[in-house]
Amino acid sequence: MTGRFISLEGIDGSGKSTQSRRLAEHLRSLGRDPVLTREPGGAPGAEEIRRLLVEGDPDRWSPETEILLFTAARRDHLERTIRPALAADRDVITDRFADSTRVYQGATRGDLRALVDAIHADAIGVEPDLTLILDMDPEVALSRGLARNSGEDRFEEFGLPFQQKLRAGFHALAEEFPDRCILIDAQADPDTVAAAIAAAVDGA
Amino acid sequence: MTGRFISLEGIDGSGKSTQSRRLAEHLRSLGRDPVLTREPGGAPGAEEIRRLLVEGDPDRWSPETEILLFTAARRDHLERTIRPALAADRDVITDRFADSTRVYQGATRGDLRALVDAIHADAIGVEPDLTLILDMDPEVALSRGLARNSGEDRFEEFGLPFQQKLRAGFHALAEEFPDRCILIDAQADPDTVAAAIAAAVDGA
Repeated sequence: MTGRFISLEGIDGSGKSTQSRRLAEHLRSLGRDPVLTREPGGAPGAEEIRRLLVEGDPDRWSPETEILLFTAARRDHLERTIRPALAADRDVITDRFADSTRVYQGATRGDLRALVDAIHADAIGVEPDLTLILDMDPEVALSRGLARNSGEDRFEEFGLPFQQKLRAGFHALAEEFPDRCILIDAQADPDTVAAAIAAAVDGA
Repeated sequence: MTGRFISLEGIDGSGKSTQSRRLAEHLRSLGRDPVLTREPGGAPGAEEIRRLLVEGDPDRWSPETEILLFTAARRDHLERTIRPALAADRDVITDRFADSTRVYQGATRGDLRALVDAIHADAIGVEPDLTLILDMDPEVALSRGLARNSGEDRFEEFGLPFQQKLRAGFHALAEEFPDRCILIDAQADPDTVAAAIAAAVDGA
């Protein structure tokens, strides 16, 4: 018996971290003991790799080197946090997984999706059982002040057109992987979004 | 017109860094302006990744995560240091390149060579024009005090049987890639080794 592996995805400011916590509360109310984690990071070594990715000049890594670093952090996260939790019959809720690399790197340079997929197939090889894509108009995220500018969530630095490309990328991903992806309207109030996510998780 | 891409490989303490400098002097005596570099590292970002690899508990990364981190550092090194130098018609002498990952990871766990090669093909895709494999009995390296124990060159920590496996791995590599690999007897005195390397480079 193993737990369920659930990822939350979406543009910067779509409410992933809040809704990850709400989903953990929901699962606890059902008697589960979920592990709440996030990428890049989610394990001590992976958090060190995260610092290389999110601190310093955002242009210091090429997209290809970034893909390798994200995948290194993901491998560590998978080995040290995700797999042990699932093996202990705990559910895992992760704020971002491989889909973020597919969409962000793909939005940066369209020809990189093949590289992301090749390295993922070589070194990761697993997908979440369920991926909840929090869908929100980037202008709404920006107007609500949800888009932080903390050096990790570089909404304003990237700009609105880039966030629009990301949103379209997540829509395309939901169509590409319909068996595991569910698009959630994240523009509703947080309680409504949390209820929609709970229903999706309970019904999946 | 581009420069020549030359790597030096071999077990810990086989004299790679000394002989890299000697080779650079030889090329300068011929009017060339070589770039002397090393792995992991060789570019500012790659040096930051190096620190993750060589500092801290040596068991903190799995072999698979290590392969991804070495490859990320190599990609940065290739983009920022090696390719620009070659394009400017400068020769590049690197103390270790992808062969080290093939041999070290392969010696750790034989089934990982395929993963090293797959990620290399996806993300690096180039080999040196010439690889000089400095061949030395690990017991000789140890008795000469050439094997440092600096936290980067963990000879004693890894132990003699591991170094013997590495040496055998480099021998196998020389047989696998005869077009670019030359085995150099590194147990001779440094002047003789330097002369052998210079002759190999001039004649290749």
